[in-house]
Order: sequence, then structure tokens, then C-alpha cells
Amino acid sequence: MAPFSPRVVVPIDVKKKPWEQEKPLHNRWHPDIPPVAEVMEGELFRVEMLDCNGGRIGDNASAEDIKFVELSVVHYLSGPLRVLDTRGIPAKPGDLLAIEICNLGPLPGDEWGYTATFDRENGGGFLTDHFPCATKAIWYFEGIYAYSPHIPGVRFPGLTHPGIIGTAPSHELLNIWNEREKDLEVNGHESFKLCDILHTRPLANLPTAKGCLLGKIEERTPDWEKIATEAARTIPGRENGGNCDIKNLSRGSKVYLPVFVDGGNFSTGDMHFSQGDGEVSFCGAIEMSGFLELKCEIIRGGMQKYLTPMGPTPLHVNPIFEIGPVEPRFSEWLVFEGISVDESGKQHYLDATVAYKRAVLNAIHYISKFGYSKEQVPFQSLLAHITQKR
Amino acid sequence: MAPFSPRVVVPIDVKKKPWEQEKPLHNRWHPDIPPVAEVMEGELFRVEMLDCNGGRIGDNASAEDIKFVELSVVHYLSGPLRVLDTRGIPAKPGDLLAIEICNLGPLPGDEWGYTATFDRENGGGFLTDHFPCATKAIWYFEGIYAYSPHIPGVRFPGLTHPGIIGTAPSHELLNIWNEREKDLEVNGHESFKLCDILHTRPLANLPTAKGCLLGKIEERTPDWEKIATEAARTIPGRENGGNCDIKNLSRGSKVYLPVFVDGGNFSTGDMHFSQGDGEVSFCGAIEMSGFLELKCEIIRGGMQKYLTPMGPTPLHVNPIFEIGPVEPRFSEWLVFEGISVDESGKQHYLDATVAYKRAVLNAIHYISKFGYSKEQVPFQSLLAHITQKR
Amino acid sequence: MAPFSPRVVVPIDVKKKPWEQEKPLHNRWHPDIPPVAEVMEGELFRVEMLDCNGGRIGDNASAEDIKFVELSVVHYLSGPLRVLDTRGIPAKPGDLLAIEICNLGPLPGDEWGYTATFDRENGGGFLTDHFPCATKAIWYFEGIYAYSPHIPGVRFPGLTHPGIIGTAPSHELLNIWNEREKDLEVNGHESFKLCDILHTRPLANLPTAKGCLLGKIEERTPDWEKIATEAARTIPGRENGGNCDIKNLSRGSKVYLPVFVDGGNFSTGDMHFSQGDGEVSFCGAIEMSGFLELKCEIIRGGMQKYLTPMGPTPLHVNPIFEIGPVEPRFSEWLVFEGISVDESGKQHYLDATVAYKRAVLNAIHYISKFGYSKEQVPFQSLLAHITQKR
Amino acid sequence: MAPFSPRVVVPIDVKKKPWEQEKPLHNRWHPDIPPVAEVMEGELFRVEMLDCNGGRIGDNASAEDIKFVELSVVHYLSGPLRVLDTRGIPAKPGDLLAIEICNLGPLPGDEWGYTATFDRENGGGFLTDHFPCATKAIWYFEGIYAYSPHIPGVRFPGLTHPGIIGTAPSHELLNIWNEREKDLEVNGHESFKLCDILHTRPLANLPTAKGCLLGKIEERTPDWEKIATEAARTIPGRENGGNCDIKNLSRGSKVYLPVFVDGGNFSTGDMHFSQGDGEVSFCGAIEMSGFLELKCEIIRGGMQKYLTPMGPTPLHVNPIFEIGPVEPRFSEWLVFEGISVDESGKQHYLDATVAYKRAVLNAIHYISKFGYSKEQVPFQSLLAHITQKR
Repeated sequence: MAPFSPRVVVPIDVKKKPWEQEKPLHNRWHPDIPPVAEVMEGELFRVEMLDCNGGRIGDNASAEDIKFVELSVVHYLSGPLRVLDTRGIPAKPGDLLAIEICNLGPLPGDEWGYTATFDRENGGGFLTDHFPCATKAIWYFEGIYAYSPHIPGVRFPGLTHPGIIGTAPSHELLNIWNEREKDLEVNGHESFKLCDILHTRPLANLPTAKGCLLGKIEERTPDWEKIATEAARTIPGRENGGNCDIKNLSRGSKVYLPVFVDGGNFSTGDMHFSQGDGEVSFCGAIEMSGFLELKCEIIRGGMQKYLTPMGPTPLHVNPIFEIGPVEPRFSEWLVFEGISVDESGKQHYLDATVAYKRAVLNAIHYISKFGYSKEQVPFQSLLAHITQKR
Repeated sequence: MAPFSPRVVVPIDVKKKPWEQEKPLHNRWHPDIPPVAEVMEGELFRVEMLDCNGGRIGDNASAEDIKFVELSVVHYLSGPLRVLDTRGIPAKPGDLLAIEICNLGPLPGDEWGYTATFDRENGGGFLTDHFPCATKAIWYFEGIYAYSPHIPGVRFPGLTHPGIIGTAPSHELLNIWNEREKDLEVNGHESFKLCDILHTRPLANLPTAKGCLLGKIEERTPDWEKIATEAARTIPGRENGGNCDIKNLSRGSKVYLPVFVDGGNFSTGDMHFSQGDGEVSFCGAIEMSGFLELKCEIIRGGMQKYLTPMGPTPLHVNPIFEIGPVEPRFSEWLVFEGISVDESGKQHYLDATVAYKRAVLNAIHYISKFGYSKEQVPFQSLLAHITQKR
Repeated sequence: MAPFSPRVVVPIDVKKKPWEQEKPLHNRWHPDIPPVAEVMEGELFRVEMLDCNGGRIGDNASAEDIKFVELSVVHYLSGPLRVLDTRGIPAKPGDLLAIEICNLGPLPGDEWGYTATFDRENGGGFLTDHFPCATKAIWYFEGIYAYSPHIPGVRFPGLTHPGIIGTAPSHELLNIWNEREKDLEVNGHESFKLCDILHTRPLANLPTAKGCLLGKIEERTPDWEKIATEAARTIPGRENGGNCDIKNLSRGSKVYLPVFVDGGNFSTGDMHFSQGDGEVSFCGAIEMSGFLELKCEIIRGGMQKYLTPMGPTPLHVNPIFEIGPVEPRFSEWLVFEGISVDESGKQHYLDATVAYKRAVLNAIHYISKFGYSKEQVPFQSLLAHITQKR
Repeated sequence: MAPFSPRVVVPIDVKKKPWEQEKPLHNRWHPDIPPVAEVMEGELFRVEMLDCNGGRIGDNASAEDIKFVELSVVHYLSGPLRVLDTRGIPAKPGDLLAIEICNLGPLPGDEWGYTATFDRENGGGFLTDHFPCATKAIWYFEGIYAYSPHIPGVRFPGLTHPGIIGTAPSHELLNIWNEREKDLEVNGHESFKLCDILHTRPLANLPTAKGCLLGKIEERTPDWEKIATEAARTIPGRENGGNCDIKNLSRGSKVYLPVFVDGGNFSTGDMHFSQGDGEVSFCGAIEMSGFLELKCEIIRGGMQKYLTPMGPTPLHVNPIFEIGPVEPRFSEWLVFEGISVDESGKQHYLDATVAYKRAVLNAIHYISKFGYSKEQVPFQSLLAHITQKR
């Protein structure tokens, strides 16, 4: 095979479980999860990934799997990948890793995805007070287009992207995460109850061994036990990138990630066929398995050159995302305004979350005027900015 | 003049004060502010407007005018305009008013604008804790491009739009506004202090006669006194549209506004040469005077057909914005992620405002790496998604 | 007026004839036509212009004016404008003039245009064998949109541009033009008759005093007589730019013109609301009066640096056009293929003109399937790539 | 495999010759070439293809293969494919076949392409008088991007498309083609010699058994002998679509092809990573092998409904191409004007081919000002509208 063909560094077999894959997956951030492969600066390589739920959601009309889905296991990530320069020297803390997304798509034979709303009993979602029951819609992909048997009449070109891409934290950074999240868990209850009626969802989940998958670290070994109780969950975005869910991060985009450990050790996962402006249902996207074709560059000393820490330590940095030149173009689209007044008519003080919720509900209500049921609109609303009738 | 030339229904003389204009301006929402003109469905007409501060900010390098600017007077609006159909029947409550923005631009001889940050002593802004002093940057327009002598090296094509467009509220809707905002004023203090360290700005201002301008209603008359103490301020967006600040609402866009009073009585103002993704400084935009060329259509019964009230009354509705086909295109742009962790390193619970602030600061810090001072970056940051070197 | 307001260097009164304007117009290229104004490098200035026919075509449904229109007078140009640098030194032969189109639009009170097909008796056009009679359609402008009472159901956003922008030729370059065009006139007949049945239109018109307008040169003076018999017609594009008819040359574009005489002495005219991909009818565009807001830069020695002469002298150069960032976007559009086979079924050898004609006819026939008459489609076809139903 | 996965109807093994493929390829148009597979309306299927030269051009720096390439064999096509509706009834003459290109790309392991200029001794190309020697440049693909070791500093996102897609002609249509092309061969010499110095290339090649490949028809059988002497070459575009080389015909596009034989029997091939505005070198494109994911719809009676014959028979029709919503966007691009004056300074009468050649040469000369050699620019010029520095 010619040198320009992407080398498959993480192959995926969608018929196997996450822990049965040739390069075992992980669902936590921790410096001691060993890399599953090495890639070289300039090399084009291919990373395949399961969907965020690791294959637990079925291609069928029943939402039972969504209703009882185990939340301690998201998101299944491919990696970590250790990055070396052309002389074999790994990326070092303080460097920036520039990762270009040269191509992406579904896995052959697995060209489908799903949107869903969580059941209120199982965590719920942004609109749980309006849509408390688990629901699911399946989408089938036809190249750049997707359609759903559950939402007739809609077919649209997606802006496919990975929801998660991030480097491994150092021990020091991991401690910072765990401490500030624990502080919120312990001290946050009172304040958020008082200030916002929306805040009914569980707080950021702290490290838990339950559902923990750590790649090459064998389960129930002492190493596993130690890491599992320390490793950060993948739900919030953090200094390392992580669950950024940037809807435009598609073909031709470039991600600049801070390096905290030797080799960078970045992981990726949570592929989306398309995502709306925000996380309306389940996770605001059409979840899918898929592949990325990537290319890395190490920018030596890039953190100091391009980033400015915000917080008490030099580790309080941020990733940067450069959007690519290929996106579907639309002649016409609608914008819905939301105001900081909740559905009961009560005004809140400059509350962007309330206003966003109102805007989303306005969009859902508008679409429901065109013959869609309440079961259909929450899925659809996330796509409202890009739908077209076929 | 041919029938297709836009009729000037609100002319503006930028050398005159807001109350000296041929069609006197207003800066409050109230059903009893009389229309200054009538327009007919299908007719192309021109509305001119002062900048949001009514000409109080000077084309010079001093920020003294910003520091002491009177905030009770924003925003100066042109209108109200009463809309009739071709048989002379006015728009009625329950109708939708579809207003197309066929063209817009600066007023001849007044092709400039400004961005600014409020002084902390005078209300401050979103980043007041980082940029507490009043600052100002002047922008000169060269057709679609703007440049600033205060921010060398930046020149970019704007996406010009009116920040405010809205219909007059009915008495009933006005009461709803005043009650919910008063409730927040009275009961909101405790909660917002507890839950969010960002909430240091004054609450939504309730009706006040201070600075009040009511168009054709002569000042200090009994009518004026009554209306002035009831009329809603123009700062928040509400059910009537209002201060929506939608950055893409440029040439070719269409706004669908609910009608609450006979004739619709819509007003517009607060022109922006360009606005960022959110309101970072002063008001997140390059403020300017300007003109709109508009065309109205009355959609009879449109509120029931297209809108869904959210709240205890049928008046809790929303406008819809349809974006036009002409926007500057950019091959490359950057996205900055923000996380719900404040600058002290403390985590907040799913706080979109904290996360947005972090994203904005990340953008500011990034731009400051390229030779811009701290005085320059807050202005620039709002434009970061559209800047290019000249 | 502030320094950033565009200075009007060529004002137009559409009620006056071309020769009655404050700055008299011209319709020929010649080095000895005196400049009507000077502009300085970096200065923003405004040039107004009549339509290409100088106001002879009426805003009415009759095509009589088109049928008998005098062709010796097109195109009425505004200028020449002499360009100086900030030290007062004029552009010199060998320089490049970079002219930025910062803004453009119709003249206030004259917001309309026309398309037409020439009568076969009066020169005809590209499709004269299919549409031999003079026809006319009027278009009214509503900001970025145009519609025609003669082509119901079509309304579209234009990509407005000047059809002509060019510098004055030197005497040497003018001689080259006149000689090569005379050579074609004298020797071209035989060859073009043999090789192409399409070539039924008159050849490139050589200099003629008939209809000649030379700006400040008083008519029938000895100077006028001499220049009139030498000056080049404005119909072909040439080394100086001229009648380029580039449909994307709209707001934000930049034209790089070679300088052949002291001061550059550039002229512009022939404004189009919109033009198709090629010159199908009359001139393939919606003709209009209008204004440009321009800004010049002199690139000293730019001809040698950026251009490569092609031909026996260093004067055989070319302009370069840099397209701006603002164009209407369309989600969907059709492409029609043409083959080098004429309407009789006869094949021609790699004949791009035959193939283009077939593609245009295919487009016209397709549109006629949707209820438009044969009188309407030739106008429409030129716009086929940008039409949308309203 | 799920029903939504594309079925591979024409698999390609790039290590095998065109006649060794599982579904043997063909390089002529003829009604009697048997279909290699059937596809059903609505089904998503995958067609793989060799490059236009069938794998004869090597991934190396030598242009020897280009110099002596056999021209009687282009273009290797995959198909024909017979199209049935969901009831099993085939497409019928008079129908339109709507073929949607849902996805496309390179074949795994073969992610490279080439541009080349023909040697003057071997047919030459559009610029043979300027670039008489065979040259070649290899391009490697990195997802949406391509770069060439032979043209340093250039990397750009392609607009990948099939150069050829067409239906089988009926016997009657094939006769029309052969007669008009023979007529040109016999009678065309004199005229094209007189009228155009550019016309130095051989005429359209008439049917020839040399190099002929006819799919399932076994070579040197009587059937083969008969078909080979009748079958049309694939170089010109014709009524059936064919070699259209439309550079925007990428993901999401739709082709409407007339049906002339039972089943439609369409074929496709000649994949391009990217093509310029016209056929400058070899074939104006980066040639590659690749795959298409397609979906067909049969529009019964569509020819009469949407097409208008132009010529003496109802068969003189045309395909229609609907461009998709996904194309690379570019903020800035240059346009080069060409005039109908050849490189010797001689003027031609409204000759679009001369003007196009001048525009292309202007572009090549301009690019050569930035450090590229004459060997590099003809390849590059075809891409000039989309290049960017990396």
C-alpha cells in the first residue's frame, strides 16, 4: 500500500464489545491509561470508533434501550495515541498538538445513527420537563444525506464531526478537575436550587469505578482499582478539549490541543452525523460509529506562545478549533429568539440557559405547526437550522 | 419619482437632537405612543435612524462621553409605523407582520460607528471585572468594509443589521412585562447573589420618567407623565421582538412580528455595522446611525397559525427571523471553547454564562498574542470571527 | 463632512443628457480625452454613471426604443479620472492601478433597469436567429432584490457590478488596437463565413465620428475631429480592461489595471444589476444607472512585477480581477451542458461558441416548460442560475 | 448488513487490468454492450471505477508513460447498469433517469491521482503550442486535501466528481452521432484550417476497433467485431451526457439523463479529484480511480415533460445537472480576462476559444511570478481558482 494511504491505528469491529476490540477502548481521562498506538508527525492515519454508547442502542423503533441505558459508561473513546515527531521524539508538556481532520465518515456496513431523549428517571435532558419519556429516532445515511423512518419528509446533508477529541491530563491537572468538581458536588446544591428551576439534573458525576473501562489496564487489577477511582468522566469539556461538541468541526478542520503528558496521548470518539446549535435532546446530535482520517503536527512550546492560562495554575488553558472549508450551504434559514422568561411567565436575571431553552421551544413549536408530532419535534428541533424537504 | 423608489417615512438629520427630528423619536415601548407615519402593505419605504445613543458619542479618541453617558435614554427608535393593507385596513392583533429588509446602510455623510466598554461606575458590561474603565474605538466605513484608527491592521466586511425591531405592546402585554420585571427587581436579589458571581450589573431597569422620550407626546403633559411611568425600557428582547441583536439580520432578511395593537405600530433602531456572537463589550456591536429600506406584508391570523404561546396568556409569543441570502463568506475561522469554570478556577453548575465568558476571554487572550493591547482586544474580540488583515 | 465620506467626483443627473452632465461623459477610449477629476490614492470617492445607453431606454413596456436604438453611442462612461499618490505624483505608465469597489448601487430615484434583445435589423445578438425581434423587460429594484412586471413570479437577489472599467490607452496601444481590428475587418470576412454559421453579426466596429462623445473635448472642433476618427469603441474588452462584464465583480472586489498614460485616466460605466454566465440577450445583463464607491492604490512598477506581455510588444498585457467576499448564496442550481453540434444537427470542430449556444438554448427550453413564453425566456435565461420563486 | 449500506454493484481491483475485473469495463458507447448489473429505483449502490487510463499511468515522476499513452482506450467506464423500478419494470426510452451522487471518493489504498500534458506527437492538448512535451505531476490525497511533490507549497481541498456519466444510446441515436462526426471528419478540414490557427489537434475520432473494450462481449467474436466498428468514442459529450467534466458535480448532486434503451444502461467513469474551469492540460483534471455511491429514480415520460429536442429528431436532447450543497468555500479568488486576440497579436472574430486560451495563459503567467517553473504552471493553472498556500 502506498505511503499516502491512511494507516489504521485503531480498527473497530462493530460486532464486538468495547473491551473486545483489537485496541481496547476507554471511557475516562487519566494520565496512566497506556497508549494503544503511536503515530508520527505528518503521517496520515485512521482512527475508527464505536458510537458514544458502545453499540448498546439498537437499530429499531423501540426506546427501551434508551430508557435503561447505563450512563456510567459513556463515552467510549478510541486511543490514547502517542504522537512522535519525525526524529522519534514525543510531544512534550507545553507543546501544542495540531490535529487536522482530513476526512471522516461512517464505518462501512454501519451507516446509521440515532437521536434520543433520556427518560426523566434516567437522568433526563435539557427539555425533560417537556419530554419526560425516553424516545428514539433512527437515521439512515445515504452519503452526505440522512433520513429517518420516524420523521417522514425530512432529509438533509449533515455536518459530520467527532464530539470528543482531547489529550490526556497530567496528574496535576486531573487533581484540579477532581477537586473543583467535588467542591461543586459538595457545595453546589444549595445555590443551584435557589437560583434556577431548570437545574434538576444530577451534578457532574465524580469518578466512579462503576462502568469504568481503561483500555489496556486489565479490569479489577490493583492498577485498575486505583485509576478507576481517580479518572475523570468524559461528559464535561475541560482544558484538554474533550466533549466539545462543536457542530462545524468537520472535514478540513484543525484542532489545537495542549499537551500535558509525554506523547500527548490524545483520544477521540462520540461521532455525530450532525448536531444542532446546542444540546437539546439526549446529546443534541445524531450518534454514530465512524472513522476519522487524521494528521498531527507538534508545535513545540506552543502553549506558551498561543495560550494564556486563566486560573491559579499554568494548566488552566484551552484548546482552539479552526473550522474547515467544506460545509453544506443553505440559502435560507430561520433564527428563533429566546428571552430570559421561563414557561411559567417568570423572569430570570440575564439567564442565558432560560433564554436558550425558550428559543429551542419556540423552534419546536414552530416545526410542530407543519404536521409533526410531539414525539418527533425534539429530535427535529436540533436540526431545524439545516432541514429541507425532499 | 418612480413608484419603486423607497418613500422616506422617517427622515433623520444627524445634526439635530432626537426630539428635534421631523418625526420625533421615542425610547420606550408603549401602546399609546402615536404612529409617526403610515405604510402600506407591499410598499417599499425607507426608515432612517440615529445611533442607539442619539448622537451623544463623538467621532474622536476620548472615552469621556462613554464614561458619563446617560443610560436612561437608550435606545432611540424610529417609528412607530402603522401598517395598512392595500384596502386601507390596518394590521390587527393576532396578525403577523412580515417585514423584509430589502436594503440598509449608513446615512450619507455619517459613515462611521463606535464600539465601547462601559465604565464600571456607569453600569459596566459583560467583562467589567476585566476591563473596568470606559474605552472607545471609532470605526470608519468604506462601503462594505470598516477599519479603526484605534486598532491598526484590522479591516473587515460587516454584516450590517438593525439591533432593534419590534411592534408596540398592548396594554395587557405591557402589564405582563412590568409585573414580571418588577417581581425580579423585588425578589431576585437574593438568589442571583448566591448563585452567580458574575451578576454584578444592575437589574433590568423598570419604567422611569427619567430620560423618557415619547415621540409625538409632548413632554411633561399629563399624557406624557402617565405613559412615562408605564412604558417599558428597550434593553431586553421581549414577545414583540425588540432588542434582538441578531448579527445575521442583514440585507434580504425577513422578520415576522406578532401584532398586539391596531396597525402593528412597529419601530426600529440601534443599527450595527457588525456584531459578534454575543454582547461582549458595551453592546457587542459597532454602533451607527443608518437607514433601512423595508417592505411589509400582513399575514392575517398569523399568530395562531404559526406561533404557540408559552406562558399563562395567549400573548406569550415570539418573533421569527428569516435570514437573507447575502453574507460575507470566510474560508477560515476559529472557534473558542469555554467551560463552566470561572477565572478563579471554581466550577459552576452547567452555567452557560460562565462558559461563554471563558470562551470570550480565550479569544481575547489569543488575539492579544498578535500585538494588540488590552485596550484594543475587547473591541476586537467581538469581531474575531470575521477579521482579516488588510 | 467627515473625511471618510466618499467625495462625489462624477455626479450624475439622470434627467440630463450625457453631454449636459456637470462632468461630461465619453463613449470612446483615447489618450487625449482630458480627465474630468483627480483622485488621490487611499481616498474614498464616488463615481456615478448613466446606464450604457445614456438614458435612451424608457421605463415602459414598449420595445420600440430598443428596436431603433443608436448603437454608435454605447457605452457612456464616467471619467477619465486621474490618479495621484499622496505626494501628488500621478500614476505612471508601467504602474498598476488597484481599484477597490467598496460599495455600489442604483442612483436614488432611479432604481430600475432593463434587459432587451436587439432587433435583427439593428445588429441582433447571440440568439438573433431564434429571437429576431426587439423585446424589452423592465426590472424594478427593491434593495438587493429585483422583479419584473414582464416576467411574473421571478424575484432574485442581484450580484451588481460595473460592466466596464478601464484605463486610457497610450497612442501606441491605441494604434495596435486600430490596426488589428482593421485587419480583421478587411481580411476576416472570408474565414469567418466559411467556418461558422453563427457569425452573422457585424464585425467589431472601427472608429467612427458618428455618435462620438469625448467628454470635455468640444464637438466638431479640430481636436474632436481628430480624436473621433482614432478613438477605440468600447464594445470589446482589451488590454486596458474595458468591457469585461465579469458578473462577480461586486462589492469588495478589486481590479488591477495596467497604466498606459500619465495619471492612469481610468473610466467606468455600464452598470449591471445582474448578469448571467455570458452575454445571451442584448448584453446579457440588467442595464441600469448607478454609483460606485471606489478607492485606488498605485502599485509602482506593477506591470513588470505581476504581468507578462503576450504579443509583439510590452503593451500586450491584461488586467486582473480579485472577487469580493459578498455574493448571494444559493443552495441549489442547475448546470446545462452544450455540445458542439448546432441546431440543425451539424457537428462543429471543438467550437466553444456553438456549445455555449446549445447550453443556453437548453436552459431557455427548460425554463419554458414552467409556463414562460418565448418572449420571456431569453431574458430569464441569463438569470437562470440565480432565480428563485417568491 | 443493513439495507441502507450501499451494495457494491461494480467492484474494482486496481491491481487488475480493465478486462480482468469481476465486472469487465468498457470504453465505447453502444446499445448492445450488455449490462453488468441491475439496480433498483431507490436503492443505494456503489460503483467503483479505474482512472480514465485504466491504470496505465504510474505513481512516479517519469512522464514516459504519458508520452506514449495509447489514446484509443480512454475512457474506461464501469457499467452499463440496468435500472428497474420497485415493481421490476425497467426504465424505458422517453423516461428520465435521475441519478443522485450521495457520496464519492478514492478507492482505499489508491488515494492518489495525476495531471499531465500530452506530448505534441501524441495528440497534444489545448496549450500544446506552449507546452509541447509530455509532463506529469502526481497528487497525493489526504482526505479532502491534495498536494503534489512536484508542485511544492500547494495544498487545496478538491471538488471531486465523475467526469463521465451517461446512458447507452439507441441504435438510431448512435447512427446520428456517427454520421455527423463522419461528416465533420470528411468535410471539416478545409474550414477549420482557414478559420482558426488553434485547430491543430486531430478531429473527433471515429469508431475504431483498435483499443476497443466492450465489457461482457468477448473480444474478436463476430459480435465484438460488429459493435467495435460502430461504437462511439467517449471523448465528446453528447445527448446521453457522457464526458461532461462538470467541476461542481460532487457530493449531493443529481444528474437527469435521457433514457434511449430499455433499462437505461448507464455507465460512469473518469473520476477527478478536481477540475479547473475548462480543459487546460491533458484533460484539465486530477485523474484518479474511485467510487460513487448512487441512487436512481425513474421519471416516467420525463423526456417529453422536461426536455426539448434541438435538431431534426426527437433524440436531440440534453442532460440536466443539479449541483449539490457541499462545495469548498473560498473568501478570495482571482478572475483572468481573455480577449479574442491570439499570442501573435492577431485579432479573431468573437472567438471564445482564443479568448479562453488567453485567459488561461494570463493565469499561468501570473502564477509563474511566484516561483513556479513552466513545467509546473500548466498543471497548476487548472487549479488556480482553488489553490491556497499551506
